[in-house]
Amino acid sequence: MGSEFERIANIRRRASRPAGAVRLGIGDDAAVLHPESGFETVVSTDLLVEDVHFDLSWSTPELLGRKALAVSLSDMAAMGAIPRAAFLSLALPSKLDDEYLDAFFSGFLGLGDRFGVTLAGGDFSSTSGPFIVNVAITGEVEAERALRRSGAQPGDLLFVSGSLGSSAAGLRQLQSGMTLDTASTGMDLDAIRSHVAPSPRVELGRALVLTGAATAAIDLSDGLSSDLRHLCDESGIGAVVEASLLPTHFSLEDALHGGEQYELLFAVPPALVQRIELIAHQLKTELTRIGRFEHPGAGVWLERDGRGEVLEPRGWDHFRS
Amino acid sequence: MGSEFERIANIRRRASRPAGAVRLGIGDDAAVLHPESGFETVVSTDLLVEDVHFDLSWSTPELLGRKALAVSLSDMAAMGAIPRAAFLSLALPSKLDDEYLDAFFSGFLGLGDRFGVTLAGGDFSSTSGPFIVNVAITGEVEAERALRRSGAQPGDLLFVSGSLGSSAAGLRQLQSGMTLDTASTGMDLDAIRSHVAPSPRVELGRALVLTGAATAAIDLSDGLSSDLRHLCDESGIGAVVEASLLPTHFSLEDALHGGEQYELLFAVPPALVQRIELIAHQLKTELTRIGRFEHPGAGVWLERDGRGEVLEPRGWDHFRS
Repeated sequence: MGSEFERIANIRRRASRPAGAVRLGIGDDAAVLHPESGFETVVSTDLLVEDVHFDLSWSTPELLGRKALAVSLSDMAAMGAIPRAAFLSLALPSKLDDEYLDAFFSGFLGLGDRFGVTLAGGDFSSTSGPFIVNVAITGEVEAERALRRSGAQPGDLLFVSGSLGSSAAGLRQLQSGMTLDTASTGMDLDAIRSHVAPSPRVELGRALVLTGAATAAIDLSDGLSSDLRHLCDESGIGAVVEASLLPTHFSLEDALHGGEQYELLFAVPPALVQRIELIAHQLKTELTRIGRFEHPGAGVWLERDGRGEVLEPRGWDHFRS
Repeated sequence: MGSEFERIANIRRRASRPAGAVRLGIGDDAAVLHPESGFETVVSTDLLVEDVHFDLSWSTPELLGRKALAVSLSDMAAMGAIPRAAFLSLALPSKLDDEYLDAFFSGFLGLGDRFGVTLAGGDFSSTSGPFIVNVAITGEVEAERALRRSGAQPGDLLFVSGSLGSSAAGLRQLQSGMTLDTASTGMDLDAIRSHVAPSPRVELGRALVLTGAATAAIDLSDGLSSDLRHLCDESGIGAVVEASLLPTHFSLEDALHGGEQYELLFAVPPALVQRIELIAHQLKTELTRIGRFEHPGAGVWLERDGRGEVLEPRGWDHFRS
């Protein structure tokens, strides 16, 4: 196993040269980013812990590296930001050799290249515990235009991208021992793929900012029921979800509460629905109205077979098990 | 133990309100930072792993939280940047209760307040392994003015702030079972304090940028011998350190190779030495010339008792033990 400095030198060779927004990348005490005039900088950080967020047997190292970045790109998507630079911290147990790490970086850097994201820094350590990955990411968005969680208004329509529940169904299959290689039906394969190789909705986030069609947005990392609650809490209003409208090939339970779907959930004033239809057409992405926002104090509801019930936030919580 | 969302809500209440450079803090998919016009954004990330970087018995949770931020502030200092926002990821073993965490945050947020740094985001997870802390930090520096590692020229003088070797000596005492409470001599107490409560040289970094007195800088996280090697490698030149000039109350070994000192090592053209003297006076900080930079290919040397020897980089490596 190489020394810390050999590892860093190796990764630096593989990471793309600093260019454009990234003035100085790996190799100094910090990276230097040059924000475009009129833009703001958007930053988030995501922690992935082996045996909490992933199991090494579930996917290849390439796919795990890819997913580590995808999760952070999804945060940029939810803000409507252009992703720019990533900072990767790895706590490495000795069971992971250089070959594993090389493949992990291939996945990470490959997805970065696709979205124009430079690996601009990071940190390494050994650990006696599980493999731990932290990704901090920066992006840019036109000043004052970031998609926040707090802008939804009563009367706005509730939209979601893509379809729901596949990641949760895939997780269950992985936990039962199925893998990408042993999945025998197309549905299982899609579900597992959705869990191990999510596609961040970066283009959609940008389209929502550029058209001004959304008043608020969040990505579905914890699950629809929990993430909708976050959106309502931050906007200070209520919402109703119509069960019959949920785009899913899986169970209602998975669609409502399944985590790690990485679709966008967003609010659209009724007068701007045509813009959403245009975006759906142009990006060839399913964008489905699944409910509406209600006045403050209305709470968060599920309408099902003509009856309403409270939609409890039962998505993912890393301290509940 | 609270749920993930309760924990986040609690920390959000304690973190200072977004203001100034931080437009949007904890509570959305990402933070939004508004860079001042004419400034660039500086970003770094640092990973601290229990039993690799620290031992819970060595200090209080307040001091550990303080140090987690201090290490990142030191990166901002080395770039000459004004620190702005921090992003804290914690992988928490079940042995750490809410009381421990509250105290950890007190230390972290307290130091943040002192340097005007807002805790603007983060992530939590449980873990079956050691306590792991990752801090990503952002700062701002006047465009094109960041202190890089790559700007030193042959003939520049090599300066270091403060004194050397105390953190390594403190670490050795901590490893032998001594603590802040049981240290019986002032020297042991200073050494342990230096290790568990380092003071980042943020004001010095700013002074070096504003006066234009330094051509390159790095912070001493790995140890003088290793960090000087980084500086020489990035600048493509050699250097000589004079052993007799090293400011230390500890052994030459500790001064040369001891890690986590968090002083700044920097290059100064001879014509600008008066500016350094002025900064030392104004900041009441010892700034000591310890050597000079040499032409490319000269290597990195130690001059001792009139003789030269190669200065091997024997600082800290997280994969060597």
